[in-house]
Amino acid sequence: MRDAYDRIAAGDVGRIAALSDGVFAVAVTLLVLDIHAPECADIHGETQLASALFALAPRGLTWLLSVMTLGIFWVGQHTQLQQLERSDRDFAWASYLFLVAISALPFSTRVLADFFDFRLALGLYWANILLCGATIYLTWGLAVGKKLTRADVSAETDRAIRRRIQIAQALYFAGMLLGLVQTTLGVGFIIAVQLNFAIAPFRAWRLSRRSGARGETGGD
Amino acid sequence: MRDAYDRIAAGDVGRIAALSDGVFAVAVTLLVLDIHAPECADIHGETQLASALFALAPRGLTWLLSVMTLGIFWVGQHTQLQQLERSDRDFAWASYLFLVAISALPFSTRVLADFFDFRLALGLYWANILLCGATIYLTWGLAVGKKLTRADVSAETDRAIRRRIQIAQALYFAGMLLGLVQTTLGVGFIIAVQLNFAIAPFRAWRLSRRSGARGETGGD
Amino acid sequence: MRDAYDRIAAGDVGRIAALSDGVFAVAVTLLVLDIHAPECADIHGETQLASALFALAPRGLTWLLSVMTLGIFWVGQHTQLQQLERSDRDFAWASYLFLVAISALPFSTRVLADFFDFRLALGLYWANILLCGATIYLTWGLAVGKKLTRADVSAETDRAIRRRIQIAQALYFAGMLLGLVQTTLGVGFIIAVQLNFAIAPFRAWRLSRRSGARGETGGD
Amino acid sequence: MRDAYDRIAAGDVGRIAALSDGVFAVAVTLLVLDIHAPECADIHGETQLASALFALAPRGLTWLLSVMTLGIFWVGQHTQLQQLERSDRDFAWASYLFLVAISALPFSTRVLADFFDFRLALGLYWANILLCGATIYLTWGLAVGKKLTRADVSAETDRAIRRRIQIAQALYFAGMLLGLVQTTLGVGFIIAVQLNFAIAPFRAWRLSRRSGARGETGGD
Repeated sequence: MRDAYDRIAAGDVGRIAALSDGVFAVAVTLLVLDIHAPECADIHGETQLASALFALAPRGLTWLLSVMTLGIFWVGQHTQLQQLERSDRDFAWASYLFLVAISALPFSTRVLADFFDFRLALGLYWANILLCGATIYLTWGLAVGKKLTRADVSAETDRAIRRRIQIAQALYFAGMLLGLVQTTLGVGFIIAVQLNFAIAPFRAWRLSRRSGARGETGGD
Repeated sequence: MRDAYDRIAAGDVGRIAALSDGVFAVAVTLLVLDIHAPECADIHGETQLASALFALAPRGLTWLLSVMTLGIFWVGQHTQLQQLERSDRDFAWASYLFLVAISALPFSTRVLADFFDFRLALGLYWANILLCGATIYLTWGLAVGKKLTRADVSAETDRAIRRRIQIAQALYFAGMLLGLVQTTLGVGFIIAVQLNFAIAPFRAWRLSRRSGARGETGGD
Repeated sequence: MRDAYDRIAAGDVGRIAALSDGVFAVAVTLLVLDIHAPECADIHGETQLASALFALAPRGLTWLLSVMTLGIFWVGQHTQLQQLERSDRDFAWASYLFLVAISALPFSTRVLADFFDFRLALGLYWANILLCGATIYLTWGLAVGKKLTRADVSAETDRAIRRRIQIAQALYFAGMLLGLVQTTLGVGFIIAVQLNFAIAPFRAWRLSRRSGARGETGGD
Repeated sequence: MRDAYDRIAAGDVGRIAALSDGVFAVAVTLLVLDIHAPECADIHGETQLASALFALAPRGLTWLLSVMTLGIFWVGQHTQLQQLERSDRDFAWASYLFLVAISALPFSTRVLADFFDFRLALGLYWANILLCGATIYLTWGLAVGKKLTRADVSAETDRAIRRRIQIAQALYFAGMLLGLVQTTLGVGFIIAVQLNFAIAPFRAWRLSRRSGARGETGGD
């Protein structure tokens, strides 16, 4: 059975991209729902509201962590899929498993936010990110191994994509180890690294303004 | 009235694909929301958190079951839509009914998770899967019967697509019968079968590594 | 300001289609979330679960009503957008207002389900459907009036699209009037009419099987 | 590392558009979930339901505010992306940050609805809109500075896009200042300005009907 079906199954890269954008869009929007607005009944003045909002800061921190993580994986997968000529059943399944790992992030984010000082919560969160990394590494391995990539994809591109996942996972692992010493330290370290990604566009923008309309920025 | 409108209605396969990816993306992401994080107030140490997370295992099992089911139907429908040249009003409605059945899965998953030992809960869950299978079988029947498929779609492809739905439904039915004896047995059986699908990419990946850059794997 | 910006604004029909598919996908999936699974604590046997599930029937009815309504509007808008050559700012805004009306359906569905015997709840629900109808009628009026449609769209197509909205709204209005006498009667009437749409594919499928591989069915 | 990866990363404008449509679709649909239907237990007659629905009016106002704001940003970003020839990693990240700001709107809307008379709530809401404006201004700056736009994008288009963001932000700022005097005044002012956008299609429609089938309306 498998052979007949396999020859025709799940060959449309666009469908994988569309499902991915859907999962990322829902995950990003759900993350913010977990920052519960303060309860009306408890608050009677501006100062009380200010401190109630301030009390949301730790939850805001885990939100920022997960939002940045989603961004990094979205850019990464976006880049991978662009290199593809076609898909097949295995690649579609591997991509689906990656998206399932991504869809679990709101859950492990909530556990981390609720149990911020617990090593187990940090471990669970890290395990989720590791699963995302492992499955996206698998999809790329499949794409190359099964010759699904476009003909003009160079060995250098292959290496760059693999290295990027390895480096990102090394950083998350380092953050997790730091977090075993103190959670805030580990989470802070990961966010600091991630903010580099977030700040890059602003830097590029300043550079592009300085170099005038030529747009000769290094980051392109 | 029907004839004038029918000639122009709902002919864009891309819209059906986009709606499907949206429904699957939301359904996958919502499933995880039903695994409620443990309550902060009850937990004061790592061990307590560990057992609270461990207590989520049955719910994790139904989540895995539904996530795998969604993946199987997504790959299946993805494959079907690829064979289409165009859509029409009947095909669009049949696809919509399939998606409605898919969108009901988070509900029947929750009932199964909450009432794991109840035959009625398993029966409801199976009825939902049967409805998904029946509607996707219908959409394919319509596509072939109404000549919506691409000219190069062979009789072999037609048979492979039908057989795949029949076999999958036979397995779900077997799982349900086993579940009448003992729910865990039935659910476990279905998950075991489904994991075959999930593990396939990993196996393909190992094979593709072994065969080097040639990518001569049997599963393509 | 308006002129310079208007010449370039919001011309991509594909973006409108993608936003629409997103809104419909989320709305369909959210509707089912409002059918709350029975509470575990209250149920100790199969019979109790059966009656608890049976008690969800009215809510299942409003769910069916809204799901069918969403399907009708989705097929309708799908058909409209297919006739378009390009979009402009006004058309994008009108489409957005239509989608806002669609996104409100889960709210008015919930009010109808919670207050099934209240005329006000039925009136609110009907007002929502009227708003969906009015805005989709507006988008088509704009498309034709501003020459956004493809050159090959005939006057007959124009009439068929308008007539379909008018007939659908007439039926919803009739259902609402019946509902003022008795809600179940009105809701039942609307669902019965809508099920015609749902059953059409099944009928087409049986016809296509009977006429063999030729697929000469009248409904295409 | 950065250079090798940067040359290939995140170049697909369609992925950014698809993620955007997903985030906007989920955000629009979630906003309505925050208008909680009245509680069944408290209501025993039509009059009670009427006053319970009427009591939702302030929440309806903030819903309208956010729905219109989402529409304005969606049309704006839609217009921007249409001018693009390609994307790159910085542009993808800047777009992602814009979408994160958009995804936070349901949260700040809820805070504003719950604490309507609090300056802090209005300030938070305004800060969110400012963040949306700043990030979308950044994405356009990047697109122009890094030459990602299509060759036929004129300096006039560039100015029109920038001016539109500046004017919109000026209006939101004015609304916020008015709101410091009295919240309803500020929110009312912003909605009044936004309704101009919403009413434009209706005006265009009436014009297009008056000018007959020629469709010679000024707004195209």
